[in-house]
Amino acid sequence: MGSVESVDVGIALLGYGTVGSAVNRLLVEGGDEIERATGHRLRVVRALVRDPAKQRGFGAADGVLTTDFATVRDDPEVDVVAEVMGGLDPAGEYVLELLRAGKSVVTANKQLVARRGAELFATASAAGVQLRFEASVCAAIPVVKVLRESLVVSNVHRVIGIVNGTTNFMLSRMERGGSYEEALAEAQRLGYAEADPTDDVSGADAAAKMAILATVAYGSRVTLDEVERQGIEEVEPSLVSAAGDLGMVVRLVGIATLVDDAVDVRVQPALVDKAHSLAAVDGAFNAVMLQGDAIREITLEGPGAGGIETASAVVADMVTVVGTTGTGFLQNDACWRELPRLPEGDVVSPFYVRVELDDRPGALALVAGKLAAHEVSVARLIQTQGEESATLHIVTHEATAGRLREALDEIDSLDEARGQASALPVISDRGVAELGWA
Amino acid sequence: MGSVESVDVGIALLGYGTVGSAVNRLLVEGGDEIERATGHRLRVVRALVRDPAKQRGFGAADGVLTTDFATVRDDPEVDVVAEVMGGLDPAGEYVLELLRAGKSVVTANKQLVARRGAELFATASAAGVQLRFEASVCAAIPVVKVLRESLVVSNVHRVIGIVNGTTNFMLSRMERGGSYEEALAEAQRLGYAEADPTDDVSGADAAAKMAILATVAYGSRVTLDEVERQGIEEVEPSLVSAAGDLGMVVRLVGIATLVDDAVDVRVQPALVDKAHSLAAVDGAFNAVMLQGDAIREITLEGPGAGGIETASAVVADMVTVVGTTGTGFLQNDACWRELPRLPEGDVVSPFYVRVELDDRPGALALVAGKLAAHEVSVARLIQTQGEESATLHIVTHEATAGRLREALDEIDSLDEARGQASALPVISDRGVAELGWA
Repeated sequence: MGSVESVDVGIALLGYGTVGSAVNRLLVEGGDEIERATGHRLRVVRALVRDPAKQRGFGAADGVLTTDFATVRDDPEVDVVAEVMGGLDPAGEYVLELLRAGKSVVTANKQLVARRGAELFATASAAGVQLRFEASVCAAIPVVKVLRESLVVSNVHRVIGIVNGTTNFMLSRMERGGSYEEALAEAQRLGYAEADPTDDVSGADAAAKMAILATVAYGSRVTLDEVERQGIEEVEPSLVSAAGDLGMVVRLVGIATLVDDAVDVRVQPALVDKAHSLAAVDGAFNAVMLQGDAIREITLEGPGAGGIETASAVVADMVTVVGTTGTGFLQNDACWRELPRLPEGDVVSPFYVRVELDDRPGALALVAGKLAAHEVSVARLIQTQGEESATLHIVTHEATAGRLREALDEIDSLDEARGQASALPVISDRGVAELGWA
Repeated sequence: MGSVESVDVGIALLGYGTVGSAVNRLLVEGGDEIERATGHRLRVVRALVRDPAKQRGFGAADGVLTTDFATVRDDPEVDVVAEVMGGLDPAGEYVLELLRAGKSVVTANKQLVARRGAELFATASAAGVQLRFEASVCAAIPVVKVLRESLVVSNVHRVIGIVNGTTNFMLSRMERGGSYEEALAEAQRLGYAEADPTDDVSGADAAAKMAILATVAYGSRVTLDEVERQGIEEVEPSLVSAAGDLGMVVRLVGIATLVDDAVDVRVQPALVDKAHSLAAVDGAFNAVMLQGDAIREITLEGPGAGGIETASAVVADMVTVVGTTGTGFLQNDACWRELPRLPEGDVVSPFYVRVELDDRPGALALVAGKLAAHEVSVARLIQTQGEESATLHIVTHEATAGRLREALDEIDSLDEARGQASALPVISDRGVAELGWA
């Protein structure tokens, strides 16, 4: 027994719910694998909970559960702490106190990392301990490790992500017909959406993930507030069907771009070419595509949520903490510079444009002329007829958002215009090919 | 100049062709990134070449090129060596000598790792140095690091890979019509296939990659000779079109399975459901899907070949060597056990079966009866008519290869049988769902 159960590395958990108990299970059941990888045995010695009497999926050993944070912080046996309680408060203060007390921390808390990253990493650095956060982005998909370690010299300059399973499920569902409300109801019924779905459908969840990914990819802090975002609440069946007619699907897409040492990060509905591999991402899965000079593009796909999946990433981070302690190897803050925000109008993309007009001869020519005058060229066009109106669905070649905005403003002021023209980015291999080697 | 050019870590290259010169370029251009990641500056101090006078894509510094292996091996300034010369001989002996001389080695040589891994890793271990091989499998796709570090407790039990770009391109091409020979000629014209394409079309290249991936995933050595393989030379347009009628595409697929502590690794043509994400892998790209208990499935996709892409993986391995030296963290051999081979008949999969029969009433019922008698159940069936014959294209539910073989043997001995029935595995989400949680 002695050597097998020896506490080489003491682990504490803040929170012992679905993720916390799964972390304990993986540490127990994967103990041999971890020992082969690191030479150490990891064991949970403390777990902070609100109600120690509650039934747990995978029970903790006697004496491990505690309701007193100070006993975790002050326990000299605790080397590494996993923050799996969620929320900003008190999780943020707890993590800061633990780092100051000399404990390395692994967190699955994207809101915390996306909002308070600067403070947390500075504290870890000052204390000479590690703060890792793989589980905070896309659960078990190892995108942080791949970005920091495998693609260290790849000059990644674009990150495109489908990083919210709820909206991905809902938008896929709308392709088979039905309204946004129906898709939401089905997602809630199947457990893919919360009773209050705001965090998912508004793009806030995806924005936090994209803020973290952009920070890691470009080495410059992007906070949640700096991410432009638009949710899917206003996606109408007519947009989904127009996209289908153009050979595309509508998805909530996160795009982080580095151009000439300026950064743009946004989350919004976009049209994705059906032939593009991001269009094949199924239901609640997530995918992140990394485009860089030396790698063209690498895509990671997998379950973006789930208790055991998140726990798997937490444990992988713990293993990396234990395996790299004392080396200074890729530890703590990925930030090392401050890059400006790319001016909004400088964002380059192919776009989908929707224009509704009075159905008069020459209207199409007028619109095409306005686009051409601003150097926006048309790649594909479909015209649908209403009672006395016509709707143009246009896919443009690469254009700057600023030029397109100028053209749309002029189109909106045409006598024939009905309502306002709208535009969404398009993700296609054509766009990738044009942009991939910036 | 002093601090920037200080030789913290001396690098040597065996070979200075496309990959070698790209490694040098990435080390120079990515020097700042590497220093931030590791605290060290990596610089090429030796490069072994046959002809120092030859023009290079990215030139080496004066005095770096040498034709004498001993000057590399005996140079005390050299800490880490990248073997990017390829071939088994003399590359194998060189790597062994370098390891014995106390140099860590990073190799891009899949044939070497798949054939002589046991000897190489034992030598590295005895010498207390590292041997890393990310670049030997799928170029820049970081599948080795993800398997070893991120999925350390995930109990991966199935690895499905499209790991040969040449055959992927050719089979995609055949979907647009045309023969194997036409597809090969086009691949050669576009530079996707060599003048002698044997290594790719026979499955040998894919088998070497799957041997390495299975070894890493399951911790038990799988050599190249132990991989069952069948190439694409006999894939006929009729198979490609039958697959299309069934909603599938034909791909050369590598499958490594762990069942009850026994291993099966094979490379062969398989039918892949068009809705499956592996079917979307484009042209010369590679993809590897890892299925495990804690992660469901994670797929990595990207360019599987190319000079700069391979160099990117070589540099990432160097960075990991430098970053983890002295820690014992996930270094050297991934093997720690010896698992038996899964008996061939125990392999479980859905299958595509092709049976040609005299066109007589009742023939279909006879075939269905033989399959049912061996517990092989039919999921989909298409019957095509010849002049006096009928061909059945059947997709089965999950079945063991042994049961299916017994059924096919009985079908072959029917009076109505024409030629021999054939079977190929099927990759579909249905199969994934059934198998994913073994």
